[in-house]
Amino acid sequence: MIALEDIEAARRVIAGRLHRTPVVGSTYLGGLVGATLVFKLEMFQKTGSFKPRGVLNNMHHLTPEERERGVISLSAGNHAQALAYAASASGITSTIVMPASAVQSKVDATKAYGGEVVLTDDDLMETMLSVQRERGLTLVHPFDHPMTIAGTGTLGLEVMEDVPDADVVVVGIGGGGLISGVAAAVKSKRPQAKVIGVEPEGAPGMTLSLQQGSPAHLDSLDTVADGLAAPFVGEHNLAHVQEYVDDVVLVTDDEIVSAMGLILERCKVVAEPAASSTLAALLSGKVRVAKGSTVVCVLSGGNIDAERLAALLPKR
Amino acid sequence: MIALEDIEAARRVIAGRLHRTPVVGSTYLGGLVGATLVFKLEMFQKTGSFKPRGVLNNMHHLTPEERERGVISLSAGNHAQALAYAASASGITSTIVMPASAVQSKVDATKAYGGEVVLTDDDLMETMLSVQRERGLTLVHPFDHPMTIAGTGTLGLEVMEDVPDADVVVVGIGGGGLISGVAAAVKSKRPQAKVIGVEPEGAPGMTLSLQQGSPAHLDSLDTVADGLAAPFVGEHNLAHVQEYVDDVVLVTDDEIVSAMGLILERCKVVAEPAASSTLAALLSGKVRVAKGSTVVCVLSGGNIDAERLAALLPKR
Repeated sequence: MIALEDIEAARRVIAGRLHRTPVVGSTYLGGLVGATLVFKLEMFQKTGSFKPRGVLNNMHHLTPEERERGVISLSAGNHAQALAYAASASGITSTIVMPASAVQSKVDATKAYGGEVVLTDDDLMETMLSVQRERGLTLVHPFDHPMTIAGTGTLGLEVMEDVPDADVVVVGIGGGGLISGVAAAVKSKRPQAKVIGVEPEGAPGMTLSLQQGSPAHLDSLDTVADGLAAPFVGEHNLAHVQEYVDDVVLVTDDEIVSAMGLILERCKVVAEPAASSTLAALLSGKVRVAKGSTVVCVLSGGNIDAERLAALLPKR
Repeated sequence: MIALEDIEAARRVIAGRLHRTPVVGSTYLGGLVGATLVFKLEMFQKTGSFKPRGVLNNMHHLTPEERERGVISLSAGNHAQALAYAASASGITSTIVMPASAVQSKVDATKAYGGEVVLTDDDLMETMLSVQRERGLTLVHPFDHPMTIAGTGTLGLEVMEDVPDADVVVVGIGGGGLISGVAAAVKSKRPQAKVIGVEPEGAPGMTLSLQQGSPAHLDSLDTVADGLAAPFVGEHNLAHVQEYVDDVVLVTDDEIVSAMGLILERCKVVAEPAASSTLAALLSGKVRVAKGSTVVCVLSGGNIDAERLAALLPKR
């Protein structure tokens, strides 16, 4: 398990290389929830999501030989951009296996950050493993690695500094990388604070994993929240959720897009569906909070095409 | 004409009551323009636009009797919310005459800030004058008043502090309240910096006013940028633009919504069409800047419904 000192070490690794993102309150949205509501604005992180926190810390622990050979991973979205960015910033070459169906803007962004993109119609994991073996590259896992978790924990430390009286911290769950680190940080700083995870109904990997007591694999994924659509939950991630997370709830796609629209209108920021799931959990009553309590929603990223945003936003 | 000391006095008036909004750069969008590009994020101002800067300063100079009686204005949008907010914050009652066709969310927001809303199908100005006479209220003009201009100048001071090497500052023009103050501030701090105004082709009030040498009235308005759709230009505003503004350019609605989409995708913030016109002017080549220069786009507000945003965003 990741300890506070691992997270503090990660913080020294990323210091000066990533942004310390701000928090902002919303009186109006807080009124709807009956709480003091604060958003952690991680869409303003480099590459538009929290992902480089874990990636940079992970790569910091590579051996000189591993750095020399380069890194590889698989992703359709935020992890791809973060890996390309963090590798280039560290003087390491990166290869990212992406589905041929990936959004062109995300492929372009990954290349622009200096990553080599391998597009495939075949199984993503098998293609990645094949390229990895062939080129002798080191895998930087999107979420299931202790150093990735220590890196995402830095976001939790910032939350506890900026909102020291937080009673509840709400975080989205895909593979579980973000909530693992955030929960470890929050519980080490303020054990009485609750950490709640949110999954889309169409990608309930952590909910299933908690029920069966082992990391679940999902055969199908069906959610607008592409950032939470992980086909499996990590082993380290499940362990951290079991230890540190108080509850995991499910939200619908409609609840997610409705929350996304409200965040746009009220906070003037773009929270991608994965990020908006946190507010959705509160507004739908899936997460109930005590009247007057202080609640933090982690808005994990803002990477969404304008075209897709327009297509998703609720029509009234 | 408003002088630097008027703007500095306005700054003391609004200090602690409004936000000092941040600036942010975009490497990607700057690359498209060939410049260092910085955005002033005024959508994070209270009520979602720059408007309360002028309103608060204006109301500060009311007599005790005027304050006692209350204030009135006319607006379909940002000024309505700002007046209601600033009046309530100053312990003054406010009446805002709005068109019956106004967006419900803007009417609701104005009421929520404590304003009394009078909806009318008749002429807005005539209705306002009639209610004003009847109740003995003081008009707080949306843009054509020296103290309003001194208030918007505070935004210019902040820009010059945060981007002291700015070569070009680009500002949208409706009635001319924002650019009047910003230009006065910029030229007093850095005379060699250029200030460029931007109007929609469908609301070219300042362009016409400069041509004819007197404030123009427009018979029709046709633009997506409701924040720039003023039916006339202010007298004080024209004088400030003649004195301090280097050029005024026209952009199309298509250029505006395309810029709005890019700001959403790249900066993760909501810039309403009026605000996005500044980037549109650069990307369309209507404003040309020297390679490597430092350019500030003032993003004046972020008040747009999610539904309208979805309807406007360009389909690719």
